[in-house]
Amino acid sequence: VDTLTEYKALLGDIDKLNSAVSLLQWDQRTYIPAGGHTGRAEVLGKLSKMAFELATSDRLGGLIASLEGAEDLSELERASVRVVGRDYRRNKAIPADLFERFTIARVNSESAWEQSKDSSDFASFAPHLSEMVRYVRQFAELYGYDESPYDALLEEYEPGMTAARLRAIIEPLKAKLVPFLRHLMENGSAPDTSFLRGRFSVKAQRDLAMEALRAIAYDFDAGRMDDTTHPFTIEIGPGDVRVTNRYHEDLVLSGLFSALHEGGHALYGQGIPETLRPLGLADGASYGIHESQSRLWENMVGRSLPFWRYFHSKIADALPTLGGRSPEDLCGAANVVQPSLIRVEADEVTYNLHIMLRFELEVALLTGDLDVMGLPDAWRDGMRRYLGVEPTCHADGVLQDVHWSAGLIGYFPSYMLGNLYAAQLYATARRELPNLDEQIERGQATVLLEWLREKIHHQGRIYEPETLIQLVTGEPPRSTFFVDYVTEKYSRVYGL
Amino acid sequence: VDTLTEYKALLGDIDKLNSAVSLLQWDQRTYIPAGGHTGRAEVLGKLSKMAFELATSDRLGGLIASLEGAEDLSELERASVRVVGRDYRRNKAIPADLFERFTIARVNSESAWEQSKDSSDFASFAPHLSEMVRYVRQFAELYGYDESPYDALLEEYEPGMTAARLRAIIEPLKAKLVPFLRHLMENGSAPDTSFLRGRFSVKAQRDLAMEALRAIAYDFDAGRMDDTTHPFTIEIGPGDVRVTNRYHEDLVLSGLFSALHEGGHALYGQGIPETLRPLGLADGASYGIHESQSRLWENMVGRSLPFWRYFHSKIADALPTLGGRSPEDLCGAANVVQPSLIRVEADEVTYNLHIMLRFELEVALLTGDLDVMGLPDAWRDGMRRYLGVEPTCHADGVLQDVHWSAGLIGYFPSYMLGNLYAAQLYATARRELPNLDEQIERGQATVLLEWLREKIHHQGRIYEPETLIQLVTGEPPRSTFFVDYVTEKYSRVYGL
Repeated sequence: VDTLTEYKALLGDIDKLNSAVSLLQWDQRTYIPAGGHTGRAEVLGKLSKMAFELATSDRLGGLIASLEGAEDLSELERASVRVVGRDYRRNKAIPADLFERFTIARVNSESAWEQSKDSSDFASFAPHLSEMVRYVRQFAELYGYDESPYDALLEEYEPGMTAARLRAIIEPLKAKLVPFLRHLMENGSAPDTSFLRGRFSVKAQRDLAMEALRAIAYDFDAGRMDDTTHPFTIEIGPGDVRVTNRYHEDLVLSGLFSALHEGGHALYGQGIPETLRPLGLADGASYGIHESQSRLWENMVGRSLPFWRYFHSKIADALPTLGGRSPEDLCGAANVVQPSLIRVEADEVTYNLHIMLRFELEVALLTGDLDVMGLPDAWRDGMRRYLGVEPTCHADGVLQDVHWSAGLIGYFPSYMLGNLYAAQLYATARRELPNLDEQIERGQATVLLEWLREKIHHQGRIYEPETLIQLVTGEPPRSTFFVDYVTEKYSRVYGL
Repeated sequence: VDTLTEYKALLGDIDKLNSAVSLLQWDQRTYIPAGGHTGRAEVLGKLSKMAFELATSDRLGGLIASLEGAEDLSELERASVRVVGRDYRRNKAIPADLFERFTIARVNSESAWEQSKDSSDFASFAPHLSEMVRYVRQFAELYGYDESPYDALLEEYEPGMTAARLRAIIEPLKAKLVPFLRHLMENGSAPDTSFLRGRFSVKAQRDLAMEALRAIAYDFDAGRMDDTTHPFTIEIGPGDVRVTNRYHEDLVLSGLFSALHEGGHALYGQGIPETLRPLGLADGASYGIHESQSRLWENMVGRSLPFWRYFHSKIADALPTLGGRSPEDLCGAANVVQPSLIRVEADEVTYNLHIMLRFELEVALLTGDLDVMGLPDAWRDGMRRYLGVEPTCHADGVLQDVHWSAGLIGYFPSYMLGNLYAAQLYATARRELPNLDEQIERGQATVLLEWLREKIHHQGRIYEPETLIQLVTGEPPRSTFFVDYVTEKYSRVYGL
């Protein structure tokens, strides 16, 4: 039990360093003056290194080892040792000097990507990408895996998930989604968005985004919302989970939906009990589960008619020129489907298709089935197959995302899993909360929030995502819920 | 030379931890949500402790010892070893367990003070104050001193200063100031302030405060200004020195002058060269010298007619209702003298009298000439002697300041020294920059700023304050410059 006290104290120290790191990052992306960036990078580097040194210390290793052999641990303590032990072994698997070389290569790769994207020149980025692929392949070997090296990378973002499981989830989804999209585009009639044209003040949009966070019961006593360039949510520490957002004068709904998206992440963070913190379990179950919370609030709730019946009056207050529009008009305009080249602009129907392509390509890169130089052709071919569109330049194609340049391979599937989990969770919530639509329409989103708190948020990192989904929904993760959701919704919106 | 590299690296590590601590504190006093305070206190505690452990480590002690014996150091490196060595020995002088007990006692004392102040009840605070005095007396013995235990405490804020030197500075000041104040109050005619009555929007005041910072050439690319409750300036790191400010709807000039005050501190921080950072010299020379920079910009510049001839048009833009007032009217209203009970509301003439009283009392407490229970009477008596007013309750008297409750004894004189240094520096600047008034009137405050940069800011912590003043002004610190300044100025303002 003394071991347990020491173990918790050490996890607490790591947690406190990470809290400082989070605030340094938040400030770096919100309020820091231009002149502060160079110094900030060094402070961040130093503190991150200190946290990593503690997280890979022999002291922590020893404590984990003794606790793994202990008999008298509670259920929760056992979960802690399992999760913290897994992180520890992964962190230790990469030798420090290899990781340092990777870090330097990554910085170069990211800046090469930025330049290549600007000039839409894939060839100058290709050697960096090849290097990144070599590094992550080496990491996969060091982490270890049963079937595919890709599994070792997935483990970082979606513990327990494998490439084979992903394929089993994706195949039926693809089989339904590709033809449905074609059907929608050929036979459906798109909702009117003409009234969204024009310029809308950033201040009014910001006020509206605040209203949206209030509407989903985001706790402003345990967080705040500030402006940034690329929106993110960050947990600074206990009672402090912050949202950031951005606004475009000519895209009036964009800031609203990104607030709901980030708000969904933040509700998850605010809902995790402090009792899990000393055990290192006060975090989301996986990137995919985290994304399920953001997508659920952004799409299942935020793009639904009940929500607009409630939120409609807030729109009228903040943006009087849209005040005359009905909830049906506004909700319709928020649900346009359009196959496009860019993932981050994709709608609910096409988004997952972008991910499927990336998954297919990164597996092929990792296993050596595809050479980096063959990537642009494979990209174009895939875009045609999945979405029926083709980029005319690399910047709108294979160079559009930052992830690969930073060695983030195995990350993309989390976005798709988030969508699928969200649909599966929402279907369950509707079953268990029969008046959910009426409650949302009356502005009582807390009913849904309480359900998510109990089912998902309160569990922190105790369970692997698949187990958690199974526990909450009674089934393993499947794509049928998502297929049913988009088919029903968009058939309706597109008058099919 | 290898020792020197290691020494700089270790100072760099301490500096980076302190940078994180600064940002955590800045956020704690500006943007943190209510729910984040408890967690933040723990993170701050942990990081401060880590920085302190490095600053008192045997490793640093060993490096200082070898560098103190080194032959081939540059002038600057020798200054570094001297300053860092002094800090190290002071930090090591207090045993960790004594300091920890003090820290706990201090937290209790501060919260007892807060309650006592609310109920104006001195008796319930007295035992805590006695305990604080016992602690600092013990600290003084551990730090060591030649003449007075008070010298050991002064050293923290004003290196090289002693109680005897302070008395020699204060006596002639008191001899002039007390009768001048009486003369002013009895025979002078106060400027009109009636037009400042009313309510002024906080937003307009904030805009005006930004203008004031621009007027003194504060660099917004290396800092920012945010709202807070008690204004402060904080150096977050290289290229990032932030100001905070507050506004009162019914005190329209208050936010403006506190912006100039904090801006003066911040200009000092922004002016210290980065080359001094690796040597631990990138900080102000002392609390008094720091205060001289804030007071110089707030009072010598900000409360001068040339400044108002320039700034007058900014007032008209931000606060149209004051637009009809002449620079003479506005400047006059900013220079009202009124003996009052509260130090933080005191004007230029009376401020130092508040400090003299505190200095007299804290020396007497420390040496045992005055008992804590005798403090309220001594306070009233002193107020009558120095300022001719007497508090009717302890909250407006002996309980008004937080300092003593936190064991900050020896701190108050820095405020007064700041005023005296400012007058001495400004007299020198006027001699060396003959057209200074015209330049300020044309909005070219950078001429003065460049002079301060070269003379004061660029020196960082290289010199002790007395040496620095001697080097820049050709004389040791004296109060005549200040006496001449207030006598001339307020005789004019009060038509004597």
